[in-house]
Amino acid sequence: MDVKNAVTRRSFMGGFAAALGYLGVRPEDVFAQAQGRGPAVAAPRGRASVAEYDAFAKLANNENPYGPPKSVMTAMMDAMKYSNRYGYPDANIVEEIAAHHGVKRENVLLGAGSGEILQVVGSAFLLGGKRVVGVDPTYGTVYQHASGIKADAIRLPLLPDYSQDMPQMIKVTKANYRDIGFVYLCNPNNPTGVVVPKQQVKQLLDSIPEDMPVLIDEAYHHFVDTPQYETSIPYVLEGRPVIVARTFSKIVGLAGMRLGYAIAPKPLIDRMRPHSIASINALVKHGGAAALKDEASQAEVKRINSQLRNKTVADLQALGYECIPSECNFFMVHIKRQIQPTIEDFRKRGVLVGRPFPPMLEHMRVSVGTADEMNRFTVAFKEIFAGARSTSAQ
Amino acid sequence: MDVKNAVTRRSFMGGFAAALGYLGVRPEDVFAQAQGRGPAVAAPRGRASVAEYDAFAKLANNENPYGPPKSVMTAMMDAMKYSNRYGYPDANIVEEIAAHHGVKRENVLLGAGSGEILQVVGSAFLLGGKRVVGVDPTYGTVYQHASGIKADAIRLPLLPDYSQDMPQMIKVTKANYRDIGFVYLCNPNNPTGVVVPKQQVKQLLDSIPEDMPVLIDEAYHHFVDTPQYETSIPYVLEGRPVIVARTFSKIVGLAGMRLGYAIAPKPLIDRMRPHSIASINALVKHGGAAALKDEASQAEVKRINSQLRNKTVADLQALGYECIPSECNFFMVHIKRQIQPTIEDFRKRGVLVGRPFPPMLEHMRVSVGTADEMNRFTVAFKEIFAGARSTSAQ
Repeated sequence: MDVKNAVTRRSFMGGFAAALGYLGVRPEDVFAQAQGRGPAVAAPRGRASVAEYDAFAKLANNENPYGPPKSVMTAMMDAMKYSNRYGYPDANIVEEIAAHHGVKRENVLLGAGSGEILQVVGSAFLLGGKRVVGVDPTYGTVYQHASGIKADAIRLPLLPDYSQDMPQMIKVTKANYRDIGFVYLCNPNNPTGVVVPKQQVKQLLDSIPEDMPVLIDEAYHHFVDTPQYETSIPYVLEGRPVIVARTFSKIVGLAGMRLGYAIAPKPLIDRMRPHSIASINALVKHGGAAALKDEASQAEVKRINSQLRNKTVADLQALGYECIPSECNFFMVHIKRQIQPTIEDFRKRGVLVGRPFPPMLEHMRVSVGTADEMNRFTVAFKEIFAGARSTSAQ
Repeated sequence: MDVKNAVTRRSFMGGFAAALGYLGVRPEDVFAQAQGRGPAVAAPRGRASVAEYDAFAKLANNENPYGPPKSVMTAMMDAMKYSNRYGYPDANIVEEIAAHHGVKRENVLLGAGSGEILQVVGSAFLLGGKRVVGVDPTYGTVYQHASGIKADAIRLPLLPDYSQDMPQMIKVTKANYRDIGFVYLCNPNNPTGVVVPKQQVKQLLDSIPEDMPVLIDEAYHHFVDTPQYETSIPYVLEGRPVIVARTFSKIVGLAGMRLGYAIAPKPLIDRMRPHSIASINALVKHGGAAALKDEASQAEVKRINSQLRNKTVADLQALGYECIPSECNFFMVHIKRQIQPTIEDFRKRGVLVGRPFPPMLEHMRVSVGTADEMNRFTVAFKEIFAGARSTSAQ
């Protein structure tokens, strides 16, 4: 397969093309510039060059392959005139988020992505020798940050069905109450794509000490279909010590622009704020506010994502490879071999897939890209696993 | 004066118009959209509406009134296609900064503006009951952050000529050595615009204990003309515990896009990194890398800034108002009355000027805007101080 001429160009044209067209820019111009810079830009050591990067099917980072919708691109272009300003009309982003969730301004803390929120919670509640409780594997930022500030984590293994072990989480939290700074729940969980059912979230909150902060990371909230799941924001309204982290990086496609937020009771926000940088750029504040008013484009991303994820999973299962049922814009497939060399096999075929998530070293996390990218993935999968396939129960 | 039809439109057209023209966008289109949104966008409580904000002469925040240069705008537009990505070619921004200063990658820490660097230094060196030493007034972020994390500051008054009192800073640092986390030096100082001469920086570093970290905030480095000043980055190369903070917000005009960095010896960077978020958007990484290669546009901004600052200062002094000699893109004028109501007097005339900087409550900080903005400032000044002027030695 000729990676250089791969058709990611077309897939990338969605929101960008529309927005640039709206502004009178021909997408070809932007591309010509970007491609033209290719030879002049040195490839970073060990990283892909611009042209190489653009040509990959990018299924490694749970990104939204369509880019921000037109409404968001337009708002960001309009806000370009504030590039040089500190104080400027900020599209009332905090008020808009508060209104969207039916909370007050004081219940909202912005972050440069929800990653900042996770780190701020760590600094606010772990400094001074406290520990965080959560499962393993889950999104690693919380544990990495804890380690950086010399705090410990109690990591609980997933159950055999890859769900989070709530009874064990309750037991460990109660048994170590005085030492624990907060409980971390990624819901749905990354990298498995599995939700914590709403009854289990309630069971957790009802069972642990009443003043124990619980950080619930809902980065993938918008992709979930199952009625077993629901957001935990209502617990904030009840005044429980719940911090819900949300992001514009996933369903809205703004990962590279950095905007997320926490919804939490005021006393928790007040403890978090001194540790926050919340240094958010002008463009994404306007883009985020526009996104909150554009539910149609999010519904469309969700619909296409579910359809492509389900089709790809069905193809893999038909080939004899089990997939963990996912409610997200990624899924895990059991590849029956070590993941690290397999990542390289895909890379050679122009497809980037997820990193190792120990201890699940025979599972591969695959982000849901465009239809074209998923086709390229499936073709590469069949090539790589051709030998193995003949021995499977096909 | 009719604020609504003020001519800030023209001043804003510099870099933006060039970049948008390059991309085939008519600046009028962008404006039409922004203005058109005016009525639909609610004015935040206590803040200006979009149309009001755009019409102000904005001399309150030490911003670059020309916006990012064409080279930077073009790089940011090219990088728009990474809005939805985490991992992407990042224009080698860390390597480019390191090469620009002749240091290694390991000596560079990115921040979302140099404000993040100031906070990260606070978290890295003050937690656990340490204190910071610096002057008052200076840039407030360091003290505010320290207060937020329950750390103390020792604030030394400026000398009668508004310079920083190095002998006193040395004495206090030595006398409280065990309790002090780091020394803060804003050079040139904000809000006075006064430099610490290079001999005095050396005297400080040579006189305090050898392992005392010194944070030197060089946000306004690029505007300085006097040969008495020089950057402190060579001390980093010597291995002294010096952290130099720099920003793309001022000379490059990227305040709204958030990019700054620290240059420091590796052991200090290693202590800072766990406290950093460094969640930088894709656009400004590319914009920053382009800016490092565009010294001509920075030289032009510096030239115009010095010329307009000197002219405005001369006008004010001719009216009988003393100004503190500034090396920056702002200056302070002694208005012989309280600053707070005067800020309102200017605001009513469509001119935003600086906030109060206690204890200098009869000084007004004025940022250097465009020629047009400085004319509007001088006209407003004459109106507001008309009564007072007749009693001055004009």
